[in-house]
Amino acid sequence: MSTVGDEVIRCKAAVAWEAGKPLVIEEVEVAPPQKDEVRLKILYTSLCHSDVNFWDAKGQNPLFPRILGHEAGGIVESVGEGVTDLQPGDHVLPVFTGECGDCPHCKSEDSNMCDLLRVNTDRGHMIHDGKTRFSIKGQPIYHFVGTSTFSEYTVVHAGQVAKINPAAPLEKVFLLSCGISTGFGATVNVAKPKKGQSVAIFGLGAVGLAAAEGARVSGASRIIGIDLNPSRFEEAKKFGVTEFVNPKDYDKPIQQVIAEMTNGGVDRSVECTGSIQAMISAFECVHDGWGVAVLVGVPNKDDAFKTSPVNFLSERTLKGTFFGNYKPRTDIPKVVDQYMNKELDLERLEKFVTHSVPFSEINKAFDYMLSGEGLRCMIYMEH
Amino acid sequence: MSTVGDEVIRCKAAVAWEAGKPLVIEEVEVAPPQKDEVRLKILYTSLCHSDVNFWDAKGQNPLFPRILGHEAGGIVESVGEGVTDLQPGDHVLPVFTGECGDCPHCKSEDSNMCDLLRVNTDRGHMIHDGKTRFSIKGQPIYHFVGTSTFSEYTVVHAGQVAKINPAAPLEKVFLLSCGISTGFGATVNVAKPKKGQSVAIFGLGAVGLAAAEGARVSGASRIIGIDLNPSRFEEAKKFGVTEFVNPKDYDKPIQQVIAEMTNGGVDRSVECTGSIQAMISAFECVHDGWGVAVLVGVPNKDDAFKTSPVNFLSERTLKGTFFGNYKPRTDIPKVVDQYMNKELDLERLEKFVTHSVPFSEINKAFDYMLSGEGLRCMIYMEH
Ligand SMILES: NC(=O)c1ccc[n+]([C@@H]2O[C@H](COP(=O)([O-])OP(=O)(O)OC[C@H]3O[C@@H](n4cnc5c(N)ncnc54)[C@H](O)[C@@H]3O)[C@@H](O)[C@H]2O)c1
Ligand SMILES: NC(=O)c1ccc[n+]([C@@H]2O[C@H](COP(=O)([O-])OP(=O)(O)OC[C@H]3O[C@@H](n4cnc5c(N)ncnc54)[C@H](O)[C@@H]3O)[C@@H](O)[C@H]2O)c1
Ligand SMILES: [Zn+2]
Ligand SMILES: [Zn+2]
Ligand SMILES: [Zn+2]
Ligand SMILES: [Zn+2]
Repeated sequence: MSTVGDEVIRCKAAVAWEAGKPLVIEEVEVAPPQKDEVRLKILYTSLCHSDVNFWDAKGQNPLFPRILGHEAGGIVESVGEGVTDLQPGDHVLPVFTGECGDCPHCKSEDSNMCDLLRVNTDRGHMIHDGKTRFSIKGQPIYHFVGTSTFSEYTVVHAGQVAKINPAAPLEKVFLLSCGISTGFGATVNVAKPKKGQSVAIFGLGAVGLAAAEGARVSGASRIIGIDLNPSRFEEAKKFGVTEFVNPKDYDKPIQQVIAEMTNGGVDRSVECTGSIQAMISAFECVHDGWGVAVLVGVPNKDDAFKTSPVNFLSERTLKGTFFGNYKPRTDIPKVVDQYMNKELDLERLEKFVTHSVPFSEINKAFDYMLSGEGLRCMIYMEH
Repeated sequence: MSTVGDEVIRCKAAVAWEAGKPLVIEEVEVAPPQKDEVRLKILYTSLCHSDVNFWDAKGQNPLFPRILGHEAGGIVESVGEGVTDLQPGDHVLPVFTGECGDCPHCKSEDSNMCDLLRVNTDRGHMIHDGKTRFSIKGQPIYHFVGTSTFSEYTVVHAGQVAKINPAAPLEKVFLLSCGISTGFGATVNVAKPKKGQSVAIFGLGAVGLAAAEGARVSGASRIIGIDLNPSRFEEAKKFGVTEFVNPKDYDKPIQQVIAEMTNGGVDRSVECTGSIQAMISAFECVHDGWGVAVLVGVPNKDDAFKTSPVNFLSERTLKGTFFGNYKPRTDIPKVVDQYMNKELDLERLEKFVTHSVPFSEINKAFDYMLSGEGLRCMIYMEH
């Protein structure tokens, strides 16, 4: 089968050698895709806060050297044995969580947590053989969430690859491979605000603003944005956020501030920060009787969620979601089509890209995120 | 208006003078119903665990002397000013949580937590004037959750009274005024298992077995009952519970035992114990991806619910409910009608009454519940 890749590719990749240190652009060897895997040529990628969590590895298990990156778009370069639904040239989005199609989760209409391919942040190898496809002069370099898109070429399980409409502009829709879908889906698939309801969004990064966009599209009457960084507020206005609250401006718990603003609490809240304190506030700020809170942020591994059980008994609901409850291979191509046929607005999607750097300057993307400047920094490959 | 009661009634009531001490049958004065209140002649009542919680007042705010009781059926004796939808002779169930009909909760289809009349376990007086309607030689005796049904006559806010079909046998349907509706509704209105799903029930008292009955009616494939008291297991078989787990038989967390029994967790769980540990287990034992846990038990006031936020992120849902999410005045008459027209099975309802004592022997009902013997002890008045 001529489409099966069998050559090692030498290309550039940004390697995280140590926790919290700048990435180093290295020449790496990328092995051919094995059974059920595909090798992708990455064209666009960006930095999501989840990469930062495992790069600085504060409160997470460290695993280095590693190639990070999971928000990306690219083209299939070659496919491994057994891959029949993808072929070289296909336009694709790699996704950090996969869809095998066969397990109880893939068969359930409620779950996207595939037993085989669900996100695993501690694993640094491919599941087929427990080995890495990346190496530098023979030294294995670990993968990250099965995607490792901070490389010109990467190897991904075919179940983690969404094949999309080739007419879609990859430099825009690549954002749908993580943060935007996560935030938007958290609101429209999980929190499900009714028309006219109020929604609080904790964290106004790209994930939070995509959640706000979901609230806007759902017809929310008030969208309250909460962030510790007031510079986020300007950007947020473009995404329909109508009110802003900075916890630093108050000496009482922010859930109390929100309850006072909303006559007892918001109807829905979506937490997009990763801060355990924000998670608790996001739950406690929803109205009793009908309020629904949704957790999205990735916590530190030892964080504990703590609240009075009476907050549940008074009929509040708490849920969490990965990837906005989208099934990556089934749903994401449909979301791309919604942008293409204008059910969703591609121009609003573009607004998330506030910076753009060539791959060689990838560390700037870290600086922007760490300083809270802008939303997404597009990193374009210079193949 | 001749139906307005204006005479003080002298009758027998069981007074809790001190935390944890046997009730004392006293002659009490029951004042006439005031604005928006009705005075009821109680015919049947029973003891629910929530009475016990405020009787022994361990972990709750003590308030004595008090007339407990909230699961009951009776007849309207007289009505106060402004009450137009109830009249003397109506068959009614008093309910610990009310429905004003006007507040955002009453108007929401999702909530039954009426702003005006929601359960308030710390309040011992009527909301109209902040006074009690019970006294003994002028000494006020406190109310309990607005119902205080351990009295031959009691005064209740009209919004806490469900008017039911007079053809319904009160000695059976009085049970629908608390525990049975709470448990049954927690499953069918809140946990909503799909046909063929597995359901875990924590606590096999009347509330838990009514929750199990809800699971049976919903077509659950497995109903796993968890209780520390193995004597509950015999009774539970009559209510469709198919498997039994006693946490005392294991030296690992019971959520782990259940996950092992069910290939990763049950689809739904309903906690009906009041134990914070059981609440946490009930949440953690549901399957990731789609599991839903519902809290029903009344916790101690300082209890904290604590779990890893990752349990939410892996797509578990946690909810709580009061009174099975039924709106007392709107829904309970309909549930009674379902029993009358055989959509629900009155014979199964009878099975909850395992003991019966005259009012003068009410303390026996406490003994039965404290020893975990039987489910509900019917206490019949000897008017
Ligand atoms: N569940 C998933 O599938 C999934 C997918 C992608 C991202 N994430 C997570 O979502 C979160 C957001 O990602 P992002 O890329 O938008 O990050 P980001 O850093 O761009 O935005 C996070 C925002 O939260 C704010 N913040 C932090 N702590 C706060 C607090 N206590 N109160 C209020 N605001 C606070 C920050 O100031 C920042 O503006 C991260 O935790 C990320 O790991 C989860
Ligand atoms: N939310 C509401 O609207 C509402 C209404 C009625 C009752 N309740 C509450 O529901 C709970 C049950 O009421 P009931 O009348 O059926 O009580 P009950 O005492 O008859 O039954 C409770 C059962 O839970 C078991 N149990 C206690 N701790 C346990 C643990 N850690 N693990 C497993 N089993 C445990 C006991 O052995 C007992 O069999 C009580 O907390 C009561 O206050 C709540
Ligand atoms: Zn991401
Ligand atoms: Zn799967
Ligand atoms: Zn009760
Ligand atoms: Zn109301």
